[in-house]
Amino acid sequence: METKLPKLVRISIIGLGNVGRGVAEVIRRKQEEIKRKYGIYLKIVGVADLPGAVVDENGLSEDAIRKFKSRETTEDMTTLDMIKDVEHEIVVETTPTNVENGEPGLTHIITALESDRHVVTSNKGPLALQYGMLMDLAAKKGKELKFEASVGGAMPIISLINDNLAGNGIISIKGILNGTCNYILTRMREEKLPYKHVLKEAQERGIAETDPSNDVAGRDTAVKLVILANSIFDRNVSYKDVEVSGITGITSEALKLADGAGYVIKLIGEVDGGSSGECLKVAPRLVPKDDPLNVGGTLNVATIKTDLAGDITVIGKGAGPIEAASAVLSDIIGIYM
Amino acid sequence: METKLPKLVRISIIGLGNVGRGVAEVIRRKQEEIKRKYGIYLKIVGVADLPGAVVDENGLSEDAIRKFKSRETTEDMTTLDMIKDVEHEIVVETTPTNVENGEPGLTHIITALESDRHVVTSNKGPLALQYGMLMDLAAKKGKELKFEASVGGAMPIISLINDNLAGNGIISIKGILNGTCNYILTRMREEKLPYKHVLKEAQERGIAETDPSNDVAGRDTAVKLVILANSIFDRNVSYKDVEVSGITGITSEALKLADGAGYVIKLIGEVDGGSSGECLKVAPRLVPKDDPLNVGGTLNVATIKTDLAGDITVIGKGAGPIEAASAVLSDIIGIYM
Repeated sequence: METKLPKLVRISIIGLGNVGRGVAEVIRRKQEEIKRKYGIYLKIVGVADLPGAVVDENGLSEDAIRKFKSRETTEDMTTLDMIKDVEHEIVVETTPTNVENGEPGLTHIITALESDRHVVTSNKGPLALQYGMLMDLAAKKGKELKFEASVGGAMPIISLINDNLAGNGIISIKGILNGTCNYILTRMREEKLPYKHVLKEAQERGIAETDPSNDVAGRDTAVKLVILANSIFDRNVSYKDVEVSGITGITSEALKLADGAGYVIKLIGEVDGGSSGECLKVAPRLVPKDDPLNVGGTLNVATIKTDLAGDITVIGKGAGPIEAASAVLSDIIGIYM
Repeated sequence: METKLPKLVRISIIGLGNVGRGVAEVIRRKQEEIKRKYGIYLKIVGVADLPGAVVDENGLSEDAIRKFKSRETTEDMTTLDMIKDVEHEIVVETTPTNVENGEPGLTHIITALESDRHVVTSNKGPLALQYGMLMDLAAKKGKELKFEASVGGAMPIISLINDNLAGNGIISIKGILNGTCNYILTRMREEKLPYKHVLKEAQERGIAETDPSNDVAGRDTAVKLVILANSIFDRNVSYKDVEVSGITGITSEALKLADGAGYVIKLIGEVDGGSSGECLKVAPRLVPKDDPLNVGGTLNVATIKTDLAGDITVIGKGAGPIEAASAVLSDIIGIYM
């Protein structure tokens, strides 16, 4: 019987927030299974957070990562030095999205690609601002830049289109890409409660942030649309090109009226190839109750209109550390499949 | 600038029913686009139907395929001789499903793999009966055997799980895998009409076959479940292992009762890894109205329960020649990606 040594894949994780720690946990949990199934052995050789990075070429333990995160241990080097100088194959970039200038993620990703490392990221900022430049750089270096986790969390959409629907022309994508807004509109409709009341409830349950404006004003959805526009439709747009309205003006009365007519109201992002309508828009929209886009709670959903397969709809959890980590992990495995 | 010659991929299509002709049409329609996007040039060098095969190493024209289908031209050779002797890379097998002995598809697929050709098929019979043997043969020959079109038509499920959800443990799959049954139950509920009336309507509209028993008795769903059980869960089951009941006993009254309680009735196929429950079952089930599985018309849907990504649901057209051809085309491209 043939025995093949598993391929060693060394990984650094930048950003130890929910997603970064989720990735560390998922790699630990799945290490043996992935070795067996895909013949690759994932080893975390460095993690970085605000103070800098800790590294261990033999692999960082759960305990070492936890201690560094809680500042019980200090950094070994700067984050950029780790990216450049520690030998590894993949940089996982999970710092928070910044749509002003994309930093610090943008510099991390550029440095990683220039150091000949693949990049897997959940960070929307660099992709929304500098998609073309980053993809060109990745192509020039012969490295992969993957970002499934940046749109729709665990809900597969980028790879679904690129792999499963290969050969199809993609006409448009339309969906709910923000779980917080979906939760608020779902609860307002079901409980007939006003916006402010439900927002407060969502904040108490940790579904909405203390400053919810990024979600409820539609900005988070807009950034995800830009990533889809550039990556799926080859458009060259940025965040400022999106026509955005949010859900803060939606009243219980509007939801009730819609309900009587057989509709729900959802915050819908829509993008197409731009050849005819140039659609790139986030707005509250009436959705027929029996439309696949009518999903409740914090779920995300997208309907992909194609020229051969017709409409394909995918539904999944848009947020959550393990869910986002699942998308990161699939991207990592995808590099070696 | 680097110019790379596209890779020539020669294809034979066996079976000139709806799916086979759909594949021919889709390849013709997409030939240039696929060459540009994926660097492969697809050429149909042979087609086979009941009388045998016609071949042309320069590529068969639309007209040549049509004339052979309508018996205006005669065969050049037998189907098996074409598979064995005509130089080509991929055999697309689209003959009708036969769950008694898998023929003639089974012999076509075995012959193709033994002749060192990849196989892409929409034919459920050979997979439901001889999955393990066929995959072993493909592995031994270092060839691919792909079958996305056999389950759910254009709705991606096999590749969705294998590629997009790589790294996830799959706990169970539950869904509507037969569009005819979904259409009948949807119309019975919406129009409050009895089963027989709606079945007749479906037959008139070409949605149900003259002998509908394969669909309405749940057998078609059962065969698809067997393919999922063997390919996704590594089980070793066959058609006879499925617990099956169909929809012929469902009354308008039952649908009305369910409706009042907030449910719809759907024919659900369910399969899991078999470690605990050994679930492999087709039966009419109550589905909450707000469940993602509640889709209407002829749509197919599947909810995939995973250990990391949570529940992922995918919805799409389960039937239709171009839709099935879309799945075949994605499989073909997938071999070279």
